[in-house]
Amino acid sequence: MRVITSPFVTIPAQLGNLRVVLVATRNPLNIGAAARAMSNFGFCHLRVVNPYEPAYREARSAVGASELLASAEEFGTIAEAVADCTLVVGTTAVRNRNLQQPVRRLDSGGILIRKRLGSSRVALLFGSERVGLSNEDLSHCHWLVRIPTCEQNISMNLGQAVAVCLYELMRDPKSKPQAEKGVRATSGDLETITGLLVHALGASGYPGTAVSTEQKVRRAIRRLNLSSVDAEVWLGMLRQIVWKLGAGVTQ
Amino acid sequence: MRVITSPFVTIPAQLGNLRVVLVATRNPLNIGAAARAMSNFGFCHLRVVNPYEPAYREARSAVGASELLASAEEFGTIAEAVADCTLVVGTTAVRNRNLQQPVRRLDSGGILIRKRLGSSRVALLFGSERVGLSNEDLSHCHWLVRIPTCEQNISMNLGQAVAVCLYELMRDPKSKPQAEKGVRATSGDLETITGLLVHALGASGYPGTAVSTEQKVRRAIRRLNLSSVDAEVWLGMLRQIVWKLGAGVTQ
Repeated sequence: MRVITSPFVTIPAQLGNLRVVLVATRNPLNIGAAARAMSNFGFCHLRVVNPYEPAYREARSAVGASELLASAEEFGTIAEAVADCTLVVGTTAVRNRNLQQPVRRLDSGGILIRKRLGSSRVALLFGSERVGLSNEDLSHCHWLVRIPTCEQNISMNLGQAVAVCLYELMRDPKSKPQAEKGVRATSGDLETITGLLVHALGASGYPGTAVSTEQKVRRAIRRLNLSSVDAEVWLGMLRQIVWKLGAGVTQ
Repeated sequence: MRVITSPFVTIPAQLGNLRVVLVATRNPLNIGAAARAMSNFGFCHLRVVNPYEPAYREARSAVGASELLASAEEFGTIAEAVADCTLVVGTTAVRNRNLQQPVRRLDSGGILIRKRLGSSRVALLFGSERVGLSNEDLSHCHWLVRIPTCEQNISMNLGQAVAVCLYELMRDPKSKPQAEKGVRATSGDLETITGLLVHALGASGYPGTAVSTEQKVRRAIRRLNLSSVDAEVWLGMLRQIVWKLGAGVTQ
Protein backbone atom coordinates (compact mmCIF):
# COMPACT_ATOMS: atom_id res chain seq x y z
CA MET A 1 0.00 0.00 0.00
CA ARG A 2 1.06 3.60 -0.26
CA VAL A 3 0.77 5.18 3.13
CA ILE A 4 2.56 7.63 5.30
CA THR A 5 6.01 7.32 4.02
CA SER A 6 8.82 9.50 2.91
CA PRO A 7 11.47 9.33 0.25
CA PHE A 8 13.66 11.72 2.21
CA VAL A 9 15.10 9.63 4.97
CA THR A 10 18.75 8.76 4.93
CA ILE A 11 19.43 5.61 6.84
CA PRO A 12 22.43 5.92 9.16
CA ALA A 13 25.09 3.39 8.24
CA GLN A 14 25.27 1.95 11.74
CA LEU A 15 21.74 0.53 11.44
CA GLY A 16 23.42 -2.08 9.23
CA ASN A 17 24.75 -3.55 12.48
CA LEU A 18 21.31 -4.74 13.57
CA ARG A 19 20.40 -8.42 13.23
CA VAL A 20 16.66 -9.10 13.43
CA VAL A 21 16.30 -12.66 14.74
CA LEU A 22 12.98 -14.51 14.37
CA VAL A 23 12.82 -17.55 16.64
CA ALA A 24 10.57 -20.50 15.75
CA THR A 25 8.20 -18.40 13.66
CA ARG A 26 5.29 -20.42 12.24
CA ASN A 27 3.29 -18.14 9.92
CA PRO A 28 4.82 -17.32 6.51
CA LEU A 29 2.83 -14.07 6.40
CA ASN A 30 4.56 -12.96 9.59
CA ILE A 31 8.01 -13.77 8.21
CA GLY A 32 7.16 -11.77 5.10
CA ALA A 33 5.72 -8.89 7.18
CA ALA A 34 8.87 -8.74 9.31
CA ALA A 35 11.00 -8.58 6.16
CA ARG A 36 8.82 -5.83 4.70
CA ALA A 37 9.07 -3.67 7.82
CA MET A 38 12.84 -4.17 7.84
CA SER A 39 12.98 -2.96 4.27
CA ASN A 40 10.79 0.08 5.06
CA PHE A 41 13.03 1.16 7.89
CA GLY A 42 16.38 0.41 6.31
CA PHE A 43 17.43 -2.79 8.06
CA CYS A 44 18.69 -5.60 5.88
CA HIS A 45 20.01 -8.49 7.97
CA LEU A 46 17.40 -11.09 8.87
CA ARG A 47 18.21 -14.28 10.78
CA VAL A 48 15.82 -17.12 11.49
CA VAL A 49 16.28 -19.74 14.18
CA ASN A 50 14.56 -23.06 13.83
CA PRO A 51 11.64 -21.78 11.75
CA TYR A 52 8.64 -23.95 10.94
CA GLU A 53 10.09 -25.24 7.67
CA PRO A 54 7.00 -25.20 5.42
CA ALA A 55 6.29 -21.60 6.50
CA TYR A 56 9.86 -20.52 5.87
CA ARG A 57 9.92 -22.12 2.43
CA GLU A 58 6.59 -20.54 1.56
CA ALA A 59 7.71 -17.08 2.69
CA ARG A 60 10.94 -17.28 0.70
CA SER A 61 9.21 -18.43 -2.44
CA ALA A 62 6.29 -15.98 -2.26
CA VAL A 63 5.69 -13.70 -5.22
CA GLY A 64 7.44 -10.44 -4.44
CA ALA A 65 9.57 -11.97 -1.71
CA SER A 66 12.41 -9.57 -1.17
CA GLU A 67 16.13 -9.97 -1.63
CA LEU A 68 16.25 -9.47 2.10
CA LEU A 69 14.27 -12.65 2.62
CA ALA A 70 16.30 -14.53 0.05
CA SER A 71 19.51 -13.58 1.85
CA ALA A 72 18.18 -14.41 5.32
CA GLU A 73 20.47 -16.65 7.36
CA GLU A 74 19.14 -19.77 9.05
CA PHE A 75 20.47 -21.13 12.34
CA GLY A 76 19.71 -24.16 14.46
CA THR A 77 20.19 -22.40 17.81
CA ILE A 78 19.99 -18.92 19.27
CA ALA A 79 23.58 -19.21 20.50
CA GLU A 80 24.78 -19.56 16.91
CA ALA A 81 22.49 -16.81 15.61
CA VAL A 82 23.81 -14.22 18.05
CA ALA A 83 27.44 -15.36 18.34
CA ASP A 84 28.87 -12.29 16.54
CA CYS A 85 26.73 -9.75 18.44
CA THR A 86 27.88 -7.80 21.50
CA LEU A 87 24.35 -7.02 22.68
CA VAL A 88 21.35 -9.36 22.55
CA VAL A 89 17.92 -7.88 23.31
CA GLY A 90 14.78 -9.98 23.64
CA THR A 91 11.20 -8.86 23.13
CA THR A 92 8.66 -10.27 25.52
CA ALA A 93 5.29 -9.97 27.15
CA VAL A 94 5.68 -9.11 30.78
CA ARG A 95 2.46 -10.56 32.14
CA ASN A 96 2.46 -13.86 34.01
CA ARG A 97 6.12 -14.51 33.94
CA ASN A 98 8.87 -13.94 36.42
CA LEU A 99 11.45 -12.40 34.17
CA GLN A 100 15.05 -12.73 35.26
CA GLN A 101 16.43 -9.89 33.16
CA PRO A 102 15.99 -6.14 33.26
CA VAL A 103 13.02 -4.99 31.16
CA ARG A 104 13.21 -1.62 29.45
CA ARG A 105 10.52 0.32 27.65
CA LEU A 106 11.07 0.34 23.90
CA ASP A 107 11.88 4.05 23.77
CA SER A 108 14.54 4.05 26.47
CA GLY A 109 15.86 0.65 25.37
CA GLY A 110 16.00 1.95 21.80
CA ILE A 111 18.45 4.66 22.83
CA LEU A 112 20.81 2.05 24.26
CA ILE A 113 20.49 -0.16 21.18
CA ARG A 114 21.23 2.77 18.85
CA LYS A 115 24.33 3.62 20.85
CA ARG A 116 25.65 0.10 20.63
CA LEU A 117 24.94 -0.09 16.91
CA GLY A 118 27.48 2.69 16.51
CA SER A 119 30.29 0.31 17.41
CA SER A 120 29.17 -3.30 16.96
CA ARG A 121 26.43 -5.78 16.12
CA VAL A 122 23.19 -6.04 18.08
CA ALA A 123 20.63 -8.87 17.88
CA LEU A 124 16.92 -8.14 18.43
CA LEU A 125 14.98 -11.35 19.13
CA PHE A 126 11.30 -12.04 18.42
CA GLY A 127 9.65 -15.26 19.61
CA SER A 128 7.00 -17.46 18.06
CA GLU A 129 3.42 -16.32 17.54
CA ARG A 130 2.04 -18.69 20.13
CA VAL A 131 4.45 -18.66 23.04
CA GLY A 132 6.95 -15.88 22.42
CA LEU A 133 10.49 -16.41 23.69
CA SER A 134 11.01 -19.20 26.26
CA ASN A 135 13.02 -18.74 29.44
CA GLU A 136 15.80 -20.72 27.75
CA ASP A 137 15.67 -18.30 24.78
CA LEU A 138 15.64 -15.29 27.10
CA SER A 139 18.71 -16.51 28.97
CA HIS A 140 20.75 -15.56 25.88
CA CYS A 141 19.63 -11.93 26.22
CA HIS A 142 21.40 -9.12 28.03
CA TRP A 143 18.06 -7.43 28.67
CA LEU A 144 14.51 -7.20 27.32
CA VAL A 145 12.30 -4.56 25.74
CA ARG A 146 8.56 -4.19 25.80
CA ILE A 147 6.30 -1.99 23.70
CA PRO A 148 4.09 0.07 26.03
CA THR A 149 0.74 -1.50 25.18
CA CYS A 150 -2.37 -1.25 27.31
CA GLU A 151 -3.29 -3.81 29.91
CA GLN A 152 -6.45 -5.06 28.26
CA ASN A 153 -4.58 -6.34 25.22
CA ILE A 154 -0.84 -6.72 25.58
CA SER A 155 -0.48 -9.35 22.86
CA MET A 156 0.78 -7.86 19.60
CA ASN A 157 0.85 -9.32 16.13
CA LEU A 158 4.43 -10.33 15.26
CA GLY A 159 4.71 -8.29 12.05
CA GLN A 160 3.32 -5.21 13.77
CA ALA A 161 5.64 -5.63 16.75
CA VAL A 162 8.64 -5.83 14.43
CA ALA A 163 7.47 -2.70 12.59
CA VAL A 164 7.02 -0.70 15.80
CA CYS A 165 10.42 -1.74 17.18
CA LEU A 166 12.25 -0.88 13.97
CA TYR A 167 10.42 2.44 13.65
CA GLU A 168 11.58 3.30 17.16
CA LEU A 169 15.17 2.36 16.33
CA MET A 170 15.40 4.54 13.23
CA ARG A 171 13.00 7.25 14.40
CA ASP A 172 15.38 10.04 15.23
CA PRO A 173 17.95 10.53 12.49
CA LYS A 174 19.28 13.60 14.28
CA SER A 175 20.49 11.63 17.25
CA LYS A 176 24.11 10.85 16.64
CA PRO A 177 24.99 7.53 18.12
CA GLN A 178 28.24 7.77 20.01
CA ALA A 179 30.44 4.79 20.34
CA GLU A 180 30.44 3.39 23.84
CA LYS A 181 33.70 3.09 25.63
CA GLY A 182 35.57 -0.01 24.63
CA VAL A 183 34.50 -2.85 22.37
CA ARG A 184 32.08 -5.23 24.08
CA ALA A 185 32.54 -8.99 24.19
CA THR A 186 30.76 -11.00 21.49
CA SER A 187 27.99 -13.40 22.44
CA GLY A 188 30.25 -16.18 21.22
CA ASP A 189 32.82 -15.29 23.88
CA LEU A 190 30.11 -14.93 26.53
CA GLU A 191 28.79 -18.37 25.65
CA THR A 192 32.26 -19.88 25.96
CA ILE A 193 32.63 -18.27 29.39
CA THR A 194 29.18 -19.60 30.31
CA GLY A 195 30.16 -23.11 29.25
CA LEU A 196 33.42 -23.03 31.22
CA LEU A 197 31.75 -21.79 34.39
CA VAL A 198 28.93 -24.34 34.10
CA HIS A 199 31.58 -27.01 33.66
CA ALA A 200 33.48 -25.81 36.73
CA LEU A 201 30.33 -25.70 38.83
CA GLY A 202 29.29 -29.16 37.70
CA ALA A 203 32.72 -30.54 38.62
CA SER A 204 32.46 -28.79 42.00
CA GLY A 205 29.09 -30.24 42.94
CA TYR A 206 27.24 -26.92 42.79
CA PRO A 207 23.59 -27.58 43.71
CA GLY A 208 20.78 -27.39 41.13
CA THR A 209 19.95 -29.15 37.90
CA ALA A 210 22.24 -28.81 34.91
CA VAL A 211 19.60 -26.88 32.95
CA SER A 212 18.68 -24.42 35.71
CA THR A 213 22.34 -23.79 36.50
CA GLU A 214 23.16 -23.19 32.85
CA GLN A 215 20.38 -20.63 32.44
CA LYS A 216 21.28 -18.94 35.72
CA VAL A 217 24.94 -18.71 34.75
CA ARG A 218 24.12 -17.52 31.24
CA ARG A 219 22.02 -14.66 32.62
CA ALA A 220 24.61 -13.76 35.25
CA ILE A 221 27.36 -13.58 32.61
CA ARG A 222 25.26 -11.33 30.36
CA ARG A 223 24.61 -8.94 33.23
CA LEU A 224 28.36 -8.35 33.59
CA ASN A 225 28.46 -6.32 30.37
CA LEU A 226 32.02 -7.48 29.76
CA SER A 227 34.39 -5.69 27.41
CA SER A 228 36.22 -7.85 24.90
CA VAL A 229 39.44 -7.32 26.86
CA ASP A 230 37.84 -8.42 30.11
CA ALA A 231 36.30 -11.42 28.36
CA GLU A 232 39.83 -12.58 27.56
CA VAL A 233 40.80 -12.21 31.21
CA TRP A 234 37.83 -14.28 32.39
CA LEU A 235 38.36 -16.91 29.72
CA GLY A 236 41.96 -17.33 30.87
CA MET A 237 41.04 -17.60 34.55
CA LEU A 238 38.20 -20.05 34.00
CA ARG A 239 40.20 -22.28 31.67
CA GLN A 240 42.85 -22.59 34.34
CA ILE A 241 40.28 -23.42 37.03
CA VAL A 242 38.50 -25.95 34.82
CA TRP A 243 41.80 -27.59 33.94
CA LYS A 244 42.69 -27.91 37.63
CA LEU A 245 39.25 -29.23 38.57
CA GLY A 246 39.56 -31.83 35.86
CA ALA A 247 43.03 -32.80 37.09
CA GLY A 248 41.83 -32.90 40.69
CA VAL A 249 38.80 -34.98 39.89
CA THR A 250 40.74 -37.56 37.94
CA GLN A 251 43.20 -38.16 40.74
CA MET B 1 1.56 -13.59 19.84
CA ARG B 2 3.17 -12.58 23.10
CA VAL B 3 5.78 -9.99 22.41
CA ILE B 4 7.20 -6.87 23.92
CA THR B 5 4.33 -5.57 25.86
CA SER B 6 3.48 -4.28 29.26
CA PRO B 7 0.57 -4.53 31.60
CA PHE B 8 1.55 -1.26 33.21
CA VAL B 9 0.49 1.41 30.75
CA THR B 10 -2.38 3.68 31.62
CA ILE B 11 -4.08 5.02 28.55
CA PRO B 12 -4.83 8.76 28.77
CA ALA B 13 -8.57 9.38 28.49
CA GLN B 14 -8.16 11.83 25.62
CA LEU B 15 -6.97 9.04 23.29
CA GLY B 16 -10.65 8.06 23.23
CA ASN B 17 -11.13 11.07 20.98
CA LEU B 18 -9.25 9.49 18.09
CA ARG B 19 -11.19 8.06 15.16
CA VAL B 20 -9.16 5.64 13.02
CA VAL B 21 -10.66 5.81 9.52
CA LEU B 22 -9.92 3.07 6.96
CA VAL B 23 -10.83 4.18 3.45
CA ALA B 24 -11.70 1.59 0.77
CA THR B 25 -9.69 -1.17 2.44
CA ARG B 26 -9.76 -4.43 0.48
CA ASN B 27 -7.98 -7.09 2.56
CA PRO B 28 -9.84 -8.49 5.58
CA LEU B 29 -6.52 -9.36 7.23
CA ASN B 30 -5.56 -5.69 7.12
CA ILE B 31 -8.85 -4.60 8.69
CA GLY B 32 -8.31 -7.15 11.44
CA ALA B 33 -4.69 -6.09 11.89
CA ALA B 34 -5.69 -2.43 12.21
CA ALA B 35 -8.26 -3.36 14.87
CA ARG B 36 -5.71 -5.42 16.77
CA ALA B 37 -3.16 -2.59 16.84
CA MET B 38 -5.89 -0.20 18.03
CA SER B 39 -6.68 -2.56 20.86
CA ASN B 40 -2.98 -2.92 21.78
CA PHE B 41 -2.51 0.82 22.05
CA GLY B 42 -5.80 1.71 23.72
CA PHE B 43 -7.81 3.18 20.83
CA CYS B 44 -11.33 1.91 20.42
CA HIS B 45 -13.18 3.85 17.72
CA LEU B 46 -12.83 2.43 14.23
CA ARG B 47 -14.60 3.86 11.17
CA VAL B 48 -14.63 2.37 7.72
CA VAL B 49 -15.47 4.25 4.54
CA ASN B 50 -16.69 2.36 1.53
CA PRO B 51 -14.89 -0.89 2.35
CA TYR B 52 -14.73 -3.77 -0.09
CA GLU B 53 -17.83 -5.47 1.27
CA PRO B 54 -16.80 -9.14 1.21
CA ALA B 55 -13.57 -8.24 3.01
CA TYR B 56 -15.38 -6.22 5.65
CA ARG B 57 -17.89 -8.98 6.28
CA GLU B 58 -15.11 -11.55 6.53
CA ALA B 59 -13.11 -9.43 8.98
CA ARG B 60 -16.11 -8.84 11.22
CA SER B 61 -17.10 -12.49 11.28
CA ALA B 62 -13.58 -13.85 11.81
CA VAL B 63 -12.94 -16.07 14.80
CA GLY B 64 -11.59 -13.85 17.53
CA ALA B 65 -12.79 -10.66 15.87
CA SER B 66 -12.83 -8.03 18.54
CA GLU B 67 -15.69 -6.04 20.03
CA LEU B 68 -13.89 -3.11 18.53
CA LEU B 69 -14.47 -4.51 15.05
CA ALA B 70 -18.05 -5.40 15.85
CA SER B 71 -18.73 -1.83 16.94
CA ALA B 72 -16.99 -0.23 13.96
CA GLU B 73 -19.05 2.42 12.16
CA GLU B 74 -19.51 2.29 8.41
CA PHE B 75 -19.84 5.39 6.21
CA GLY B 76 -20.42 5.96 2.51
CA THR B 77 -18.18 9.02 2.26
CA ILE B 78 -15.19 10.53 4.02
CA ALA B 79 -17.15 13.73 4.63
CA GLU B 80 -19.64 11.82 6.77
CA ALA B 81 -16.95 9.80 8.53
CA VAL B 82 -15.08 12.89 9.73
CA ALA B 83 -18.02 15.24 10.26
CA ASP B 84 -17.71 15.35 14.07
CA CYS B 85 -13.91 15.82 14.09
CA THR B 86 -12.09 19.15 14.42
CA LEU B 87 -8.86 17.87 12.90
CA VAL B 88 -8.50 15.45 9.99
CA VAL B 89 -5.05 14.03 9.28
CA GLY B 90 -4.28 11.91 6.23
CA THR B 91 -1.49 9.37 5.87
CA THR B 92 0.22 9.24 2.53
CA ALA B 93 3.21 8.29 0.48
CA VAL B 94 4.98 11.43 -0.67
CA ARG B 95 6.64 10.16 -3.81
CA ASN B 96 5.33 11.12 -7.26
CA ARG B 97 2.52 13.31 -6.12
CA ASN B 98 2.10 17.05 -5.83
CA LEU B 99 0.59 17.29 -2.40
CA GLN B 100 -1.45 20.36 -1.67
CA GLN B 101 -1.34 20.07 2.12
CA PRO B 102 1.47 20.44 4.60
CA VAL B 103 3.24 17.15 5.30
CA ARG B 104 4.58 16.53 8.78
CA ARG B 105 6.77 13.75 10.03
CA LEU B 106 4.87 11.33 12.23
CA ASP B 107 6.70 12.32 15.41
CA SER B 108 6.14 16.07 15.10
CA GLY B 109 2.64 15.59 13.70
CA GLY B 110 1.90 13.26 16.59
CA ILE B 111 2.52 16.03 19.09
CA LEU B 112 -0.09 18.22 17.38
CA ILE B 113 -2.60 15.37 17.23
CA ARG B 114 -2.16 14.58 20.91
CA LYS B 115 -2.75 18.23 21.80
CA ARG B 116 -5.97 18.35 19.83
CA LEU B 117 -7.19 15.07 21.32
CA GLY B 118 -7.23 16.85 24.67
CA SER B 119 -10.16 18.96 23.58
CA SER B 120 -11.95 17.34 20.62
CA ARG B 121 -12.11 14.51 18.12
CA VAL B 122 -9.40 13.86 15.55
CA ALA B 123 -9.68 11.59 12.49
CA LEU B 124 -6.62 9.70 11.21
CA LEU B 125 -7.16 8.41 7.66
CA PHE B 126 -5.56 5.39 5.99
CA GLY B 127 -6.09 4.69 2.29
CA SER B 128 -6.48 1.46 0.38
CA GLU B 129 -3.70 -1.08 -0.02
CA ARG B 130 -3.28 -0.43 -3.73
CA VAL B 131 -3.58 3.32 -4.23
CA GLY B 132 -3.61 4.92 -0.79
CA LEU B 133 -5.68 8.08 -0.35
CA SER B 134 -6.71 9.86 -3.56
CA ASN B 135 -6.37 13.59 -4.05
CA GLU B 136 -10.13 13.81 -3.48
CA ASP B 137 -9.74 11.93 -0.18
CA LEU B 138 -6.79 14.12 0.84
CA SER B 139 -8.80 17.26 0.22
CA HIS B 140 -10.74 16.47 3.40
CA CYS B 141 -7.54 16.61 5.44
CA HIS B 142 -6.10 19.57 7.32
CA TRP B 143 -2.63 18.18 6.86
CA LEU B 144 -0.76 14.91 6.28
CA VAL B 145 1.67 12.72 8.15
CA ARG B 146 4.32 10.39 6.85
CA ILE B 147 6.30 7.70 8.60
CA PRO B 148 10.00 8.28 7.99
CA THR B 149 10.73 5.23 5.84
CA CYS B 150 13.75 4.83 3.61
CA GLU B 151 13.75 5.76 -0.03
CA GLN B 152 14.28 2.29 -1.42
CA ASN B 153 10.99 1.05 0.01
CA ILE B 154 8.50 3.68 1.12
CA SER B 155 5.45 1.47 0.77
CA MET B 156 4.29 0.10 4.10
CA ASN B 157 1.85 -2.68 4.87
CA LEU B 158 -1.44 -1.15 6.07
CA GLY B 159 -1.64 -3.01 9.37
CA GLN B 160 1.97 -2.16 10.19
CA ALA B 161 1.47 1.51 9.27
CA VAL B 162 -1.54 1.71 11.60
CA ALA B 163 0.47 0.07 14.40
CA VAL B 164 3.38 2.49 14.01
CA CYS B 165 1.12 5.57 13.92
CA LEU B 166 -0.83 4.53 17.01
CA TYR B 167 2.35 3.64 18.87
CA GLU B 168 3.64 7.13 18.16
CA LEU B 169 0.38 8.70 19.37
CA MET B 170 0.30 6.86 22.67
CA ARG B 171 4.02 7.03 23.30
CA ASP B 172 4.74 9.66 25.89
CA PRO B 173 7.82 11.52 24.71
CA LYS B 174 8.09 13.21 28.08
CA SER B 175 8.36 9.96 29.99
CA LYS B 176 11.81 9.66 31.44
CA PRO B 177 13.49 6.31 31.53
CA GLN B 178 13.28 5.04 35.08
CA ALA B 179 16.30 4.32 37.13
CA GLU B 180 16.92 0.67 36.49
CA LYS B 181 19.89 -0.09 38.61
CA GLY B 182 19.16 -1.91 41.85
CA VAL B 183 21.25 -1.78 44.99
CA ARG B 184 24.93 -2.24 44.25
CA ALA B 185 27.15 -4.73 46.03
CA THR B 186 29.17 -3.42 48.97
CA SER B 187 32.92 -3.16 48.74
CA GLY B 188 33.06 -5.77 51.47
CA ASP B 189 31.26 -8.28 49.24
CA LEU B 190 33.46 -7.38 46.29
CA GLU B 191 36.57 -7.95 48.37
CA THR B 192 35.29 -11.35 49.54
CA ILE B 193 34.66 -12.31 45.91
CA THR B 194 38.13 -11.08 45.03
CA GLY B 195 39.69 -13.18 47.79
CA LEU B 196 37.82 -16.33 46.76
CA LEU B 197 38.79 -15.95 43.11
CA VAL B 198 42.43 -15.26 43.96
CA HIS B 199 42.38 -18.36 46.14
CA ALA B 200 40.87 -20.47 43.33
CA LEU B 201 43.41 -19.19 40.83
CA GLY B 202 46.29 -19.87 43.19
CA ALA B 203 45.08 -23.43 43.75
CA SER B 204 44.75 -23.87 39.97
CA GLY B 205 48.28 -22.78 39.12
CA TYR B 206 47.24 -19.57 37.35
CA PRO B 207 50.43 -17.84 36.15
CA GLY B 208 51.69 -14.60 37.71
CA THR B 209 52.79 -13.49 41.15
CA ALA B 210 50.29 -13.52 44.00
CA VAL B 211 50.36 -9.74 44.25
CA SER B 212 49.92 -9.03 40.55
CA THR B 213 47.09 -11.57 40.28
CA GLU B 214 45.30 -10.11 43.28
CA GLN B 215 45.40 -6.61 41.85
CA LYS B 216 44.31 -7.80 38.43
CA VAL B 217 41.38 -9.73 39.92
CA ARG B 218 40.38 -6.85 42.20
CA ARG B 219 40.19 -4.46 39.25
CA ALA B 220 38.32 -6.98 37.10
CA ILE B 221 35.72 -7.58 39.83
CA ARG B 222 35.12 -3.84 40.30
CA ARG B 223 34.56 -3.37 36.58
CA LEU B 224 31.63 -5.82 36.75
CA ASN B 225 29.55 -3.27 38.67
CA LEU B 226 27.71 -6.10 40.44
CA SER B 227 24.34 -5.66 42.12
CA SER B 228 24.02 -6.95 45.68
CA VAL B 229 21.84 -9.82 44.43
CA ASP B 230 24.40 -10.84 41.82
CA ALA B 231 27.19 -10.60 44.39
CA GLU B 232 25.41 -13.34 46.38
CA VAL B 233 25.24 -15.52 43.25
CA TRP B 234 28.96 -15.14 42.58
CA LEU B 235 29.88 -15.72 46.22
CA GLY B 236 27.93 -18.97 46.18
CA MET B 237 29.51 -20.21 42.96
CA LEU B 238 33.06 -19.31 43.97
CA ARG B 239 32.76 -20.85 47.45
CA GLN B 240 31.71 -24.12 45.84
CA ILE B 241 34.60 -24.06 43.38
CA VAL B 242 37.14 -23.15 46.07
CA TRP B 243 35.84 -25.95 48.29
CA LYS B 244 36.22 -28.47 45.48
CA LEU B 245 39.69 -27.23 44.53
CA GLY B 246 40.73 -27.55 48.17
CA ALA B 247 39.37 -31.10 48.33
CA GLY B 248 41.17 -32.04 45.12
CA VAL B 249 44.48 -30.53 46.20
CA THR B 250 44.54 -32.27 49.56
CA GLN B 251 44.06 -35.72 48.10
